[in-house]
Amino acid sequence: MQRDHRNQRDHGKLDEGREHGMSVAIYPGSFDPITYGHLDIIARAARVFDRLVVAVLENPRKTPLLGDDDRADVIRRAIEETLAPDVARRVSIERFDGLTVEAARHHGAGFIVRGLRAVSDFESELQMAHFNRKLAPGIDTVFFMTALEYAYLSSSLVKEIARFGGDVRGMVPAAVAERLEAAAAAG
Amino acid sequence: MQRDHRNQRDHGKLDEGREHGMSVAIYPGSFDPITYGHLDIIARAARVFDRLVVAVLENPRKTPLLGDDDRADVIRRAIEETLAPDVARRVSIERFDGLTVEAARHHGAGFIVRGLRAVSDFESELQMAHFNRKLAPGIDTVFFMTALEYAYLSSSLVKEIARFGGDVRGMVPAAVAERLEAAAAAG
Amino acid sequence: MQRDHRNQRDHGKLDEGREHGMSVAIYPGSFDPITYGHLDIIARAARVFDRLVVAVLENPRKTPLLGDDDRADVIRRAIEETLAPDVARRVSIERFDGLTVEAARHHGAGFIVRGLRAVSDFESELQMAHFNRKLAPGIDTVFFMTALEYAYLSSSLVKEIARFGGDVRGMVPAAVAERLEAAAAAG
Amino acid sequence: MQRDHRNQRDHGKLDEGREHGMSVAIYPGSFDPITYGHLDIIARAARVFDRLVVAVLENPRKTPLLGDDDRADVIRRAIEETLAPDVARRVSIERFDGLTVEAARHHGAGFIVRGLRAVSDFESELQMAHFNRKLAPGIDTVFFMTALEYAYLSSSLVKEIARFGGDVRGMVPAAVAERLEAAAAAG
Amino acid sequence: MQRDHRNQRDHGKLDEGREHGMSVAIYPGSFDPITYGHLDIIARAARVFDRLVVAVLENPRKTPLLGDDDRADVIRRAIEETLAPDVARRVSIERFDGLTVEAARHHGAGFIVRGLRAVSDFESELQMAHFNRKLAPGIDTVFFMTALEYAYLSSSLVKEIARFGGDVRGMVPAAVAERLEAAAAAG
Amino acid sequence: MQRDHRNQRDHGKLDEGREHGMSVAIYPGSFDPITYGHLDIIARAARVFDRLVVAVLENPRKTPLLGDDDRADVIRRAIEETLAPDVARRVSIERFDGLTVEAARHHGAGFIVRGLRAVSDFESELQMAHFNRKLAPGIDTVFFMTALEYAYLSSSLVKEIARFGGDVRGMVPAAVAERLEAAAAAG
Repeated sequence: MQRDHRNQRDHGKLDEGREHGMSVAIYPGSFDPITYGHLDIIARAARVFDRLVVAVLENPRKTPLLGDDDRADVIRRAIEETLAPDVARRVSIERFDGLTVEAARHHGAGFIVRGLRAVSDFESELQMAHFNRKLAPGIDTVFFMTALEYAYLSSSLVKEIARFGGDVRGMVPAAVAERLEAAAAAG
Repeated sequence: MQRDHRNQRDHGKLDEGREHGMSVAIYPGSFDPITYGHLDIIARAARVFDRLVVAVLENPRKTPLLGDDDRADVIRRAIEETLAPDVARRVSIERFDGLTVEAARHHGAGFIVRGLRAVSDFESELQMAHFNRKLAPGIDTVFFMTALEYAYLSSSLVKEIARFGGDVRGMVPAAVAERLEAAAAAG
Repeated sequence: MQRDHRNQRDHGKLDEGREHGMSVAIYPGSFDPITYGHLDIIARAARVFDRLVVAVLENPRKTPLLGDDDRADVIRRAIEETLAPDVARRVSIERFDGLTVEAARHHGAGFIVRGLRAVSDFESELQMAHFNRKLAPGIDTVFFMTALEYAYLSSSLVKEIARFGGDVRGMVPAAVAERLEAAAAAG
Repeated sequence: MQRDHRNQRDHGKLDEGREHGMSVAIYPGSFDPITYGHLDIIARAARVFDRLVVAVLENPRKTPLLGDDDRADVIRRAIEETLAPDVARRVSIERFDGLTVEAARHHGAGFIVRGLRAVSDFESELQMAHFNRKLAPGIDTVFFMTALEYAYLSSSLVKEIARFGGDVRGMVPAAVAERLEAAAAAG
Repeated sequence: MQRDHRNQRDHGKLDEGREHGMSVAIYPGSFDPITYGHLDIIARAARVFDRLVVAVLENPRKTPLLGDDDRADVIRRAIEETLAPDVARRVSIERFDGLTVEAARHHGAGFIVRGLRAVSDFESELQMAHFNRKLAPGIDTVFFMTALEYAYLSSSLVKEIARFGGDVRGMVPAAVAERLEAAAAAG
Repeated sequence: MQRDHRNQRDHGKLDEGREHGMSVAIYPGSFDPITYGHLDIIARAARVFDRLVVAVLENPRKTPLLGDDDRADVIRRAIEETLAPDVARRVSIERFDGLTVEAARHHGAGFIVRGLRAVSDFESELQMAHFNRKLAPGIDTVFFMTALEYAYLSSSLVKEIARFGGDVRGMVPAAVAERLEAAAAAG
């Protein structure tokens, strides 16, 4: 089968990502912490791809609220808590450091998944996607739209509220809320 | 298999679109005429979905340059001309009139494909996608990014150039360029 | 009392709009038809101003779906249907033709109310507001944000759905939905 | 009087903000330093609301140029300098730390005032407003548009110019300019 | 002299536009009617280029308020009215039909001048500029920013006001205002 | 010759920048490091102006990857490497600290050159340009559009890739790439 052989003139070389008939995608992020908005994107992407790798950026430039292990652990519990078992089974959680396209190659992913919430998100996502195409023409970025009720949500807003003792239970899974509350109490 | 049973609280009812393990998507548009930008999106989407229905809007509000049959015919030839045979085989061309979500249901598609070129595209696409989710919660919109070299292209720009006798060969497939030239000569 | 006497250097002459301690605002639009998004803005503005004039543009450039009388009538019923009686009492419905600032002056309004849904709305609203300030420095524009669940709604989308026989009951008041269904059946 | 009893289905619970017939609004910010743009918004908002609380964020994340007391003091003088006495009388200056909605509740405010200058402002304001609605459905955000001549102004630009010895007299009140000049000379 | 020979890899072939040491630019538009915003751009561009051709689009798709001759005539009078004689001498007015790049070539112009007012202008200008570069790599687009006080102005707004008998004297030159008033009176 | 005497009412005092018939422009930036996008803008601006000063900001707030001397040196080599000798001759490299308009005055420049890549760039550029006009009405900002193939490029992206050992040869001149590779190896 030579499904990815195609005319080079009209679009880049898209020759990765569907090995053995399996479509694999990577969803990279800091997830500091994961929100219901991220989980919404995971659920949407898991409908499209046969395997979805949630790739947690290690040691992000800004000091994370939760350590690398904690962030991965919290995502695992959140996925179990909110996704159906057969969907959750297709989602794995990995850590990565470095360029997203390198992580994609490492996990055999032909696609990068990104969520879009608002116009301000969009242009930097567009730039990042063009940039990743230049670095790795065979890996394509696929965008999903966050549910309207999570359009205002962001990890930094969640941290801001938690820092002031606000209630974040409608914004992040229980496992995350507990950690945030403990962190705020510890001060 | 109950792959689409999932937690209702966190995201809408996403229960359509993967019947018998096949993912089916619809790519709706006026395609008046189809450009290399559209074909780029078709090639990208055909990597992700098992079947892609290019759905040509009949009788668009604005009088089309080409009639319904002509537009479908030109797309068929353009796909044969630019996509590899095994990719082209997974793409079908259909005509539709009415709401996109109705066309999606009619063809058993669980996904709507849209191309994003620029920020100005984005917000109306976002609104349309939210609106389609409200009409049909089980059908999701998936966005692909047009290749940078086609980011400036639009059907209306192509028609504008052709109208003034400009050269559109780098923008649309040969079959389209011929029709446009004939129309300009006649018109 | 000379509440509006103030320093001219730092801001325009804001000397209208609070006669006898009453704040009066005008909410202009085509309302063709009125949606739950418009009603949401009316409810929000009616909390702020003592009197709110919903000003229905007569003979908009684009042929309206409903005639001038019908649009005003449908708004009246929608307001009664969705707002509390004491709020509804502060809202009046008027027809106007011409410049918004003229209508504002005619009704003794010192404020123009506008709803903001999305970024694409915003810039044209900003231009219109600057323009109205130039025409009438004493009348200011005040913006309210539409509820998130109506952010995707617009009169033209509603008409589009109704035209194809789609269900618009969650988008417009019952009185409007009936008219749209009758029009679609007739048309 | 039960002015705020209303239909819950169509818009959030808007039951705060008009106690005893008085409308109270809060205008939160770092005001580091206050500019003529901020004062323009204060003047506009003071026309609409019976009482306006200018709420100065204590200890903003970024080290402020001026301390908490200084910023509040400078605002007080600027308001006296630029607003008419009867308007200035309705404006009070308070300090706050934490969430804006908590400060609003503390001061009995049913409204949050925000200024809009440009498109780039707008989306983050929209997100913040949706977020505040979720935290406090009874408190609404009302937007005013900065006068065109201050559309380019921001506190950070003012600090940038002052740092290099540029003239900021047309951008901030004299009291602020003096402080900035003293700080630049000192430092 | 081989001033335009340069490295082709890093930027397009920019070999037109500076013949005999003269830089020539074209400023295309419908100018229906010309506003102070357009005149502001003309004055700015005339500082940069040795010759500036104001190119008036004949028979624009939308029926113009003023005929082709009238628009050119009104621009001529407006330029004489507002620009210094030595600047006005470098500006010529021509009519064109068809593609802007063809008009540029016809007049020996190496540059296309465009005015930017706001974000909403910007993206379509960017697309048009990329598109013109593709059609004519040797002709570059240069952007000037309209003065802040004209940022809200547009020909269509001016026509809207004039249609309703509003005063447009601060927005367009006297010669234009007279024509608009006569047209409104007639009809 | 009194080329810059003109009507003050319609546009600012534009009386600088064309001394002795020479047009001089300044292109300010951190250039940390210079990319092919910057060089593209330099080549475009050098076609328009008789002399172009590339002004390298000393000691930018964020710690630069390369020191002041190194950044200037790398730009010099990049210009020699990519521009034709007769174009390169018209371009000089200077260092500056402080306000851009002061640097412009110091070098006798009547114009500030800025590159536009995308919508997100645009609004902050617009604000900066209005601001500079206020500080120095006689100095105008002229915008050029980066070539489409560099639209995704930014200095910070380049540094990000280099930090992770990625290949930046298609994004920056060889001289820059060597420095970045050495820094990454050392770092």
